[in-house]
Amino acid sequence: MAKELKDLTKRSESYSQWYNDLVIKADLAEQSAVRGCMVIKPYGYAIWEKMQQQLDSMFKETGHVNAYFPLLIPKSFLSREADHVEGFAKECAVVTHYRLKNDPNGKGVVVDPAARLEEELIIRPTSETIIWNTYKNWIHSYRDLPILCNQWANVMRWEMRTRMFLRTAEFLWQEGHTAHATQEEALEEAVKMLNVYSDFAQNYMAVPVIKGVKSANERFAGAIETFTIEAMMQDGKALQSGTSHFLGQNFAKAFDVKFINKENQLEYVWATSWGVSTRLMGALIMTHSDDNGLVLPPKLAPIQVVIVPIYKNDEQRNQIAEVVNPIVAELKSLGVSVKFDDADNKRPGFKFAEYELKGVPVRLAIGARDIENGTVEVMRRDTLEKSVEQLDGIVARVKALLDEIQDNIFQKALNHRESMTTKVDTYEEFKEQIEKGGFILAHWDGTPETEERIKEETKATIRCIPLDGDKTPGVCMVTGKPSAQRVIFARNY
Amino acid sequence: MAKELKDLTKRSESYSQWYNDLVIKADLAEQSAVRGCMVIKPYGYAIWEKMQQQLDSMFKETGHVNAYFPLLIPKSFLSREADHVEGFAKECAVVTHYRLKNDPNGKGVVVDPAARLEEELIIRPTSETIIWNTYKNWIHSYRDLPILCNQWANVMRWEMRTRMFLRTAEFLWQEGHTAHATQEEALEEAVKMLNVYSDFAQNYMAVPVIKGVKSANERFAGAIETFTIEAMMQDGKALQSGTSHFLGQNFAKAFDVKFINKENQLEYVWATSWGVSTRLMGALIMTHSDDNGLVLPPKLAPIQVVIVPIYKNDEQRNQIAEVVNPIVAELKSLGVSVKFDDADNKRPGFKFAEYELKGVPVRLAIGARDIENGTVEVMRRDTLEKSVEQLDGIVARVKALLDEIQDNIFQKALNHRESMTTKVDTYEEFKEQIEKGGFILAHWDGTPETEERIKEETKATIRCIPLDGDKTPGVCMVTGKPSAQRVIFARNY
Repeated sequence: MAKELKDLTKRSESYSQWYNDLVIKADLAEQSAVRGCMVIKPYGYAIWEKMQQQLDSMFKETGHVNAYFPLLIPKSFLSREADHVEGFAKECAVVTHYRLKNDPNGKGVVVDPAARLEEELIIRPTSETIIWNTYKNWIHSYRDLPILCNQWANVMRWEMRTRMFLRTAEFLWQEGHTAHATQEEALEEAVKMLNVYSDFAQNYMAVPVIKGVKSANERFAGAIETFTIEAMMQDGKALQSGTSHFLGQNFAKAFDVKFINKENQLEYVWATSWGVSTRLMGALIMTHSDDNGLVLPPKLAPIQVVIVPIYKNDEQRNQIAEVVNPIVAELKSLGVSVKFDDADNKRPGFKFAEYELKGVPVRLAIGARDIENGTVEVMRRDTLEKSVEQLDGIVARVKALLDEIQDNIFQKALNHRESMTTKVDTYEEFKEQIEKGGFILAHWDGTPETEERIKEETKATIRCIPLDGDKTPGVCMVTGKPSAQRVIFARNY
Repeated sequence: MAKELKDLTKRSESYSQWYNDLVIKADLAEQSAVRGCMVIKPYGYAIWEKMQQQLDSMFKETGHVNAYFPLLIPKSFLSREADHVEGFAKECAVVTHYRLKNDPNGKGVVVDPAARLEEELIIRPTSETIIWNTYKNWIHSYRDLPILCNQWANVMRWEMRTRMFLRTAEFLWQEGHTAHATQEEALEEAVKMLNVYSDFAQNYMAVPVIKGVKSANERFAGAIETFTIEAMMQDGKALQSGTSHFLGQNFAKAFDVKFINKENQLEYVWATSWGVSTRLMGALIMTHSDDNGLVLPPKLAPIQVVIVPIYKNDEQRNQIAEVVNPIVAELKSLGVSVKFDDADNKRPGFKFAEYELKGVPVRLAIGARDIENGTVEVMRRDTLEKSVEQLDGIVARVKALLDEIQDNIFQKALNHRESMTTKVDTYEEFKEQIEKGGFILAHWDGTPETEERIKEETKATIRCIPLDGDKTPGVCMVTGKPSAQRVIFARNY
């Protein structure tokens, strides 16, 4: 295993291969027997669970409740909303039969042709259609509004090219679906959830994000406006990390969902939807990790502190345990997740490499001489710096160090993003700069045609029209037409 | 609404209709547009979430970790284990295509015949096959064992007759899948998880259960031994509430999963699987509820205490709020989930009926005169008893009352089960008794033929061979052949 660890491809050799290696070697996930579907292994799932718990509590604090809607959607539902079907209905898993039977010609089972469904069912690629078909029965009057539901679920999109966590046929996500009496309230909700996502990304994942609005080309199929948080990976490519959609009355009209407003008039309901997925795992891995393996933000690390004893015999081992056990207890009582790895069948060097690979934020190593001296070796995963510290007061020091690491990796990612963000004023300059990677702030005339041309010629898309920052108008770098503000271009995942 | 509440069918009129009414009227779930699939509404889902949290922590305390495996299973996997395919493969949702296209003859979308899968995929009815195909790569040596994985997931079985929570095409569940080096260890695991389920049912759901072993007829397809917890509903019918399977080496053989044991020999791995599902919601509802609505055990109630103010004007309302707010704060600080419902648009009587319907364990009502007298009206949902209590010390009284209710509804259910459990020695007596419902303890010769005959003639099945209690041998009530111990017969859900 110690040998295998070294097989991790270096980022400088191939960022893409490094990522794939890391996902496998850190035991996060692996490919399954089903094309494009992954198995999320226990260590990867433990990180996802921590994300879920935090997001779920943030959703509840903002007044949302969880519910569960069917996995399967009648095919006809997809074509109810015209834009939606264009964007979503095509590449998806279709259930056509509901029974197998023994193969009359031999072993195994075959599909029973007699068990064909009258109407085919689609495995949900997203649930707007089935949910708005349900909301129709829940909403009659303004008194029934707002509805603020979230669902944790699996969804499926038959992607041609898949990469673990970043783009898989089946993935796990949450999808919020809200219904409102007014346009203002729905817009406010969409922005509120964008802010929840941004808060989560920055303060828990330690991933800096830019909040913005999508251009028409990149908008969710069926939305009036799509809000997004965009992160930059270490290779300078953008990763769309969460989206929140103002859906207007599009789905209410498609599924005929009206309510009696306070003025006693019948009106269509206003909607939002918003989601983040296991793709966030990809963002987390790619933002912080290095050639030694994962680097995890302490707030999402399943194990925050590991303690490795270094001993020559049972007597030393027992001496160390006597010193370590109260430290473990004290850390646990402070809510720190700590593992004392005194397993006898692995050498300390092997353990060090393994916990580095798995991104455990703080490692304490303690030997017989440390016990004599009242010291302990502290290694922080983010910088790999080691220091010898006094055992006295070590718990407070470790707590503080976890906060330091959380702040430091955020700041490091922010510095990286800033160093790779450029303002560009001519299309020539743009074409040159985009080859170097990173975000480019440039003026654009606001038309889909110009965006399409830029995409074809440079493979860069508009990641978002930023909500914050410089709003100075200018002229489009391609057409010279007026531009309201600079937008962010990048190549993306 | 207050009128609608009264529309709840009485149990004495139709137990089955009462159940359906209650699920709908208490806002737990409803039918969806997809045959046999339900929508779990926020209030129902909140109860399920409390169940999940408790179970998940019990799984983790017993050393298990969560993971996630694919929704879809290659068709050929199902026929690898011969018994398994007989029991499971037939009635399931089959994915045959992966793309839709615009209907060339008109509106909407049709299945693209060009996008036919080479091998059909099945929506998992249970995951033994895909998981053991995965474990093959995880297990090489005894050092890789045990593997103790659990998955929270949706599964699908194309049931012909469905009832909300009790039997639905799609349902939510957890499935544990463990791999062990020895038969003893696997058997121990299967029994350990049976005990976890029993502990959860009795101490959290307040549902008394009988632990036992399934007869061959009722065994899980592919198992060597199926352990079960069986509960009795108010109508005397049995509800299988959780099962834990000792799978022997069946799936290891089917998927060729071997390991090098400590003696350096290649051996097949030993397995268990165990699961509980949203069916537990059905058990919870049917065990405790009454003609006024749900009765929830305090430990799983999303709202444990509701406080309803009774006032004539804003001044009184403010006076009451001043007294109630510190009580709310104190209850919350003790971990009690409390709601102060001072909404102005519903009368107190309406609120009373609504919270009764929703099974909130304790209701406090407080009016202007109460404030003068330093009193509060306390209503406990289980007995519907009201009492006037001193405001002073009310928090401690409410805390104690929640425990009392938890104990009382368990005891009530246990008494009911005992009153409906009969020992029977002749088949004539059995046929008479089974019409009255309940559990019958009778001797059986241990053969599938006799069990089958009893089922055909009386619609009763063997729910389990109890692990605890009377082990006196006897003779089979049908054939007169020897019987090792009495077993439990009942009609069942």
